[in-house]
Amino acid sequence: MTVIDALLEHNAAYAAGFDGEALPAPPALKLAVVTCMDARLDPARALGLAEGDAHVIRNAGGVVTDDVIRSLSISQHHLGTEEIMLLHHTRCGMQTFTDEEFAQALEQAQGVRPQWTARTFTDLEDDLRDSVRRIKESPFIPHTGNVRAFVYEVETGRVREVS
Amino acid sequence: MTVIDALLEHNAAYAAGFDGEALPAPPALKLAVVTCMDARLDPARALGLAEGDAHVIRNAGGVVTDDVIRSLSISQHHLGTEEIMLLHHTRCGMQTFTDEEFAQALEQAQGVRPQWTARTFTDLEDDLRDSVRRIKESPFIPHTGNVRAFVYEVETGRVREVS
Repeated sequence: MTVIDALLEHNAAYAAGFDGEALPAPPALKLAVVTCMDARLDPARALGLAEGDAHVIRNAGGVVTDDVIRSLSISQHHLGTEEIMLLHHTRCGMQTFTDEEFAQALEQAQGVRPQWTARTFTDLEDDLRDSVRRIKESPFIPHTGNVRAFVYEVETGRVREVS
Repeated sequence: MTVIDALLEHNAAYAAGFDGEALPAPPALKLAVVTCMDARLDPARALGLAEGDAHVIRNAGGVVTDDVIRSLSISQHHLGTEEIMLLHHTRCGMQTFTDEEFAQALEQAQGVRPQWTARTFTDLEDDLRDSVRRIKESPFIPHTGNVRAFVYEVETGRVREVS
């Protein structure tokens, strides 16, 4: 049995306890969370989000790429969200190598150099401030009055705000 | 109190019950899940993922963009994942408008037309099959022997495989 098969067994139990009533698509809290794909961070549990509450956008680093701008734009224009919570975390893998090191490693391993960059960063708080700026400067995100940035501490489970 | 402030209150309780021991960065299940940002879907609860188990990558639609390829590449090359689970869902917002409609709406609302496309789709299963293909064709994702595609039913909580 693969890992995925085991997850499907769990899902059968989840579905058996499901209340069967489809929630509305627009997030109840009018909130979008942008965070890292990191396995140690479960944003729903760490923040107390229930099904239906918020959009959750995740990629390597939780960095604000064009794809995140696309997702936030759809979130606000089509599904009514107005607040944005950016959440990086301590001990992030994106602080352990550089864009150039990653590009060289891919080129050596696969024979092709990617056209995209890895989007690594060195300082969590600096990258969060840059991320807030990128969102506020985007013409495609109408609601930027409540964009706030946080660090999740994988050592403590605590979320602290970055100003 | 804003929505985010309420979440921070919840987080204080989460951190108080945190075991304090930092988990390792590489996902325990060697798995990456790619899914939609949709608020109705909590992949951790629906699949039984604990903190530390899997990377979770989410965007509008759960579509395989260049940013998802970037994240999966980092996940496999740097953090040891080997399986990929793609998870779309029923009643997805991305089926309710077209790329052109979204571009026109942004241009009218903001005065600027985006250079990116919304990446909408009409058929869930067709888009999942395209997504599997894009992953298998990418030179930057070394492990493609176990890439599987699923639909989450927001009406039932059930996950079903797409072949």
